Amino acid sequence: MVTVLDAGGRPLSHRDVIAEQRSHAFPFGNIGFDLVDLADEALADAESDPAASGSAGVARARLVRLAGQFLEVFNTATLPFYWSDFEPAPGSPDTARLRRAARWFAERGCRVKGHPLVWHTLAPDWLREAPIGEIEATVRARVRREVGDFAGLVRTWDTINEAVIMPVFRNEPHRNAITRLAWERGRIATVRLAFEEARAADPAATLVLNDFDMSTAYECLIEGVLEAGVRIDAIGLQSHMHQGYWGEERTLAVLERFSRYGLPLHLTETTLVSGHVMPPEIEDLNDYRIPSWPSTPEGEERQADEIVRHYRTLLAYPSVQAITYWGLSDEGAWLGAPAGLVRADGTPKPAYDALRDLVKGEWWLPPTRLRTDGAGRVEVRGFLGDYRLYDDGDGGAALLTITAPGRAETTLRLKGER
Amino acid sequence: MVTVLDAGGRPLSHRDVIAEQRSHAFPFGNIGFDLVDLADEALADAESDPAASGSAGVARARLVRLAGQFLEVFNTATLPFYWSDFEPAPGSPDTARLRRAARWFAERGCRVKGHPLVWHTLAPDWLREAPIGEIEATVRARVRREVGDFAGLVRTWDTINEAVIMPVFRNEPHRNAITRLAWERGRIATVRLAFEEARAADPAATLVLNDFDMSTAYECLIEGVLEAGVRIDAIGLQSHMHQGYWGEERTLAVLERFSRYGLPLHLTETTLVSGHVMPPEIEDLNDYRIPSWPSTPEGEERQADEIVRHYRTLLAYPSVQAITYWGLSDEGAWLGAPAGLVRADGTPKPAYDALRDLVKGEWWLPPTRLRTDGAGRVEVRGFLGDYRLYDDGDGGAALLTITAPGRAETTLRLKGER
Repeated sequence: MVTVLDAGGRPLSHRDVIAEQRSHAFPFGNIGFDLVDLADEALADAESDPAASGSAGVARARLVRLAGQFLEVFNTATLPFYWSDFEPAPGSPDTARLRRAARWFAERGCRVKGHPLVWHTLAPDWLREAPIGEIEATVRARVRREVGDFAGLVRTWDTINEAVIMPVFRNEPHRNAITRLAWERGRIATVRLAFEEARAADPAATLVLNDFDMSTAYECLIEGVLEAGVRIDAIGLQSHMHQGYWGEERTLAVLERFSRYGLPLHLTETTLVSGHVMPPEIEDLNDYRIPSWPSTPEGEERQADEIVRHYRTLLAYPSVQAITYWGLSDEGAWLGAPAGLVRADGTPKPAYDALRDLVKGEWWLPPTRLRTDGAGRVEVRGFLGDYRLYDDGDGGAALLTITAPGRAETTLRLKGER
Repeated sequence: MVTVLDAGGRPLSHRDVIAEQRSHAFPFGNIGFDLVDLADEALADAESDPAASGSAGVARARLVRLAGQFLEVFNTATLPFYWSDFEPAPGSPDTARLRRAARWFAERGCRVKGHPLVWHTLAPDWLREAPIGEIEATVRARVRREVGDFAGLVRTWDTINEAVIMPVFRNEPHRNAITRLAWERGRIATVRLAFEEARAADPAATLVLNDFDMSTAYECLIEGVLEAGVRIDAIGLQSHMHQGYWGEERTLAVLERFSRYGLPLHLTETTLVSGHVMPPEIEDLNDYRIPSWPSTPEGEERQADEIVRHYRTLLAYPSVQAITYWGLSDEGAWLGAPAGLVRADGTPKPAYDALRDLVKGEWWLPPTRLRTDGAGRVEVRGFLGDYRLYDDGDGGAALLTITAPGRAETTLRLKGER
């Protein structure tokens, strides 16, 4: 319930005011990997080189369109901090480029999340043979450096990724440094050092323990981590559904099991394909390699239906406090899967429209005319987030933030232009 | 290397002495469930009842034979402490009968192990509806009571059984009290309370964390328990191989993963069937119910081959410090499986003979003639355990215990009769 005052501080009684939502507090996320280059202006520079301008111009136009599609639906961008790419040689981190990308998103009202700080896959080759003590020191320094360098820009980190499988990961010819660390020190010690360093470098950051393993093994790990006194801010649940939509029943069962620790749940990596689903006998999704995995009309309808069902289930569950979809475009999608919400040619799939219709339609307050009572009071109902309230004439405007569920009382004083 | 002295304390030089093994230090275990009644003399009492004497006499004769077969190969007996059977009504534990059974085994040179103190399956119905605080107090009291009542008799306890699945166990219409406890308090808190109470009641007991789950989930639980500071004495690995022998490679991979915590490994529940193997798609072995599961000649040969390979693999692995086979006779075997080493008619299968030939043959020092040197020194080589050394004439005898691997020096003085 809002008491609206005019610029002079008097109740604006019996007047039409317009309320319109400006943003969601709930993080509707997606990966922003494709847009890093756009943000970095690398392609813009290439345009000034005549030899490259043709194809670069096309590529840039594609990214500009993709950026528009991103910002239309999503308010949180996950940026890539895969260590082997981020620091291809020791001491040469890709910090400046990623900082520009993070700022680009922030300037467009998008929160930024970093993924991942510690992970065995894409661990740097140059650390592979190091003694274990050196590995630990280098991992600690890397976590400290990235979290410190991005403090205030990256608010949320997948602090450690897939710790359940980490020490016993076998999908590579030589054991990487992170697997060796987790094998020798144990999972919990590895989780602890990642969280310790990240916490110290940015006490305000939200630190997520993230895993794809939805089995009881992840519960066991979480219980161990909590008993060991490591403070984690959210439990990350990947939900790559290349093998088919989980359905409401399984989704709720997963949420029930992982919500019992009293921590927020972040659905960190959600995918639904718009083509055939991967056969169930594939255990490691990375093992499924096919020359072409097309998006089909039936698949796209199914994906649209499933994304609506999935987001409805998640949003209605109190513990769920973030959802990140994994990929906007089919172009360059993980595993070549048609998991994007936009086709490789840039046109939106039905799932894109369906999700936009939820996030910016059903779950969104469009400009809505309300009438204040004699005391200038008016009720504004909506999802948590930022709203703009303005006089229908020239009485000015004010920003309203709904910060918590339930009824609240506030007073706003309109000023400036509508 | 033993220096042998005669009864007068002089070196027994240049003399023949006989060394023979009396027992293994290594625990070769089996379940002694079938023999509890024999030990308890219940059948003996029944014999004095003329109406029952016929069948009881037959049953007793069967058990006497089984007892002989047990003691010929095994030196450790696991006794049943399934709570719902052990204490069918609150306050009426089956302590006296089980104490007699434990003494019966101990008097026959058999160490005794108790299984299990805390387990969701066979949790007492009378505790199902209790408030969680009362469940915890009752579980604590039960652990304290049993471990205290059997201190000195039961040296090893499966202190908690199958904690990985405990809170999410769903194979029953209503949730039992132990599952509720593990769900609400967490696995580690439940493990901790079981170990705390057992440790306090008998500090000398060997306390085992036991599980059938050989997946990474069990590793996660173990790491959590250790990080939480709970002291466990051995990691129990069930290895019910109703779905087929693991083979050396898988067995070694399991041993490698679980030995890295530096704790002894107990193979607590080993079975190999002498009939067809259970289909691989069965997830919970308890779900496989068939009217008859016969032992077959080919199956018996396979079982004999596999048991030898399995025991060789295990015994050669330094961390493995106990092996318990799960069932001596097919009569009454778990799931009706032909997992016994003795057929339902009491005749030994090839696997029984094969295991006996290892334990009391290849891994055993039969009476062996050795010659002392001029200083009365003689080398005795054998597995850890107790040996008797005696003069080939009438120079007396002495007991020798080999307590640790590697060379050791000791002096024995023979006395008494050979």
